[in-house]
Amino acid sequence: MIDRLIEKIIEKRNPTVVGLDTRLEYVPEHVIEKCSGTSPFEVAAGAILEFNKAIIDAVYEHVPAVKIQIAYYELYGAPGIEAFRLTAQYAQSKGLIVIGDIKRNDIGSTAEAYASAYLGETPLKSGSMPAFGLDFVTVNPYLGTDGVMPFIKACKDYGKGIFVLVKTSNPSSGEIQDLPVEGKRLYNKVAEKVVEWGKELMGTKGYSHVGAVIGATYPQQLKELRAEMPNTYFLIPGYGAQGGSARDIISGFDGHGLGAVINASRSVICAYRRSPWKEKFSPQRFADAALAEVLRMREDIETALLHSGIKPW
Amino acid sequence: MIDRLIEKIIEKRNPTVVGLDTRLEYVPEHVIEKCSGTSPFEVAAGAILEFNKAIIDAVYEHVPAVKIQIAYYELYGAPGIEAFRLTAQYAQSKGLIVIGDIKRNDIGSTAEAYASAYLGETPLKSGSMPAFGLDFVTVNPYLGTDGVMPFIKACKDYGKGIFVLVKTSNPSSGEIQDLPVEGKRLYNKVAEKVVEWGKELMGTKGYSHVGAVIGATYPQQLKELRAEMPNTYFLIPGYGAQGGSARDIISGFDGHGLGAVINASRSVICAYRRSPWKEKFSPQRFADAALAEVLRMREDIETALLHSGIKPW
Repeated sequence: MIDRLIEKIIEKRNPTVVGLDTRLEYVPEHVIEKCSGTSPFEVAAGAILEFNKAIIDAVYEHVPAVKIQIAYYELYGAPGIEAFRLTAQYAQSKGLIVIGDIKRNDIGSTAEAYASAYLGETPLKSGSMPAFGLDFVTVNPYLGTDGVMPFIKACKDYGKGIFVLVKTSNPSSGEIQDLPVEGKRLYNKVAEKVVEWGKELMGTKGYSHVGAVIGATYPQQLKELRAEMPNTYFLIPGYGAQGGSARDIISGFDGHGLGAVINASRSVICAYRRSPWKEKFSPQRFADAALAEVLRMREDIETALLHSGIKPW
Repeated sequence: MIDRLIEKIIEKRNPTVVGLDTRLEYVPEHVIEKCSGTSPFEVAAGAILEFNKAIIDAVYEHVPAVKIQIAYYELYGAPGIEAFRLTAQYAQSKGLIVIGDIKRNDIGSTAEAYASAYLGETPLKSGSMPAFGLDFVTVNPYLGTDGVMPFIKACKDYGKGIFVLVKTSNPSSGEIQDLPVEGKRLYNKVAEKVVEWGKELMGTKGYSHVGAVIGATYPQQLKELRAEMPNTYFLIPGYGAQGGSARDIISGFDGHGLGAVINASRSVICAYRRSPWKEKFSPQRFADAALAEVLRMREDIETALLHSGIKPW
């Protein structure tokens, strides 16, 4: 699946990923008004799905992938989860790669259930069928190898990929992740594990199907980890609303402008509420505002890459 | 919520928790046959819910709580999640405390969504309502304080509790958790954080609403952590099918037989398929077999406590 992601990045000439972290409060009133349902959660989930579809319609020709943060769907119970599934399905129908930001992990037998649910297929009394059928998911490393192997097996069996949390973008990520371990930091040790897990799952373009999550808000660590993990693709959240700039994320790329996908969520899906786009687009045109921000972001990153002497895509 | 858990343990004279890690393959044929639905996932989810209700009916007078492992419900998509919610609701209607084994965590804003979904209430256009309304959830510590604070806030606002992963029960838990950090192990540092997080959220019975997950399969670490965390309640998985014995978990208790809840999942819900119960109970009587195993387990733990000089409950 990493090969397909790289192909899409080159095809769209864009390493940015739209984060569909859609909360009901982001959805303009005119979208909500059109939705009905038997419960407030059904209405909310329906409105979020419609919002997402409009964003996908606007951006799918310009980005390789979307990242869907499942927490914002779990907020609305089972109808929310169904909206998550249908959002993923709709994005895939438009040729987009879908990264499920689920940050799951557990002991082996339970991790196997998560891997089956999100990447593989659910066993039934006769046969099996996919519950979500995503392309990539994010995985938490705290439980070690036997919490990750079921995901790796699903990657092999179904041609999928994962991104393992190494250094997250939040302010307190250092409390645990930066603890000193044998002359290094904990995140370096986790990075070593990710490299090890990824070795048996190499794609054909120099990168493993086992990637890593490294926050844009820690540019120094990003640079360090790029050097330590030359065959690991990075999913870099934290650009935009969380404060990461294009300059911060440049060191996550290789010499060809590959090796990293940059996620922006709120700065794109809420663009219609933020300067400079809110002056140009009404809430009715929220999807156009999202596209405008996606194109601006692409420019921003391409310019930063060119300034660093990297001629990308 | 920790106070209520302790009261229930004393009332039922039992610190064991039934883990409803229900997979479709555990559900006897006669239960599945009675279920209908418009999709295979609806049928599966319906069967699992019926199975869970029968188990709850059989055990609710004898145990303080159930632990529901959400991975096994996510396997069946939105219908699975609805079965998870209804299982929790049914258990609560029978007076049981519900621990959601969700092992969630993320950056602050996203952790807030998880905390609202599982412990608090989901904001809507007007007002708010609970999506799952659980009593406790399990939380992964890898992202540090700002991934945990939203859960703590929900505990305060809604009178709930959490159990943070410290030392998990799986074979490879040591890979990350046992790494040497400043003369200790990583899990000791995480334990220190858990104690710190719990200080501002003390119950009235000597224990914090912020508990810890420590696997039964690591008795030495359990003993060590009991001493380091005198005000932290432990959720101890790994008894039974994972190999932990009553002797292994005794050191997780305090001098009154409190301080720990012991979870068993497969050994209870699949008791009807295992010796010695399969010789005594037909698949029709799966719930009776579960109760028999719950009572045996309670005896087993009480005996081990008495042998250690602890007169419990």
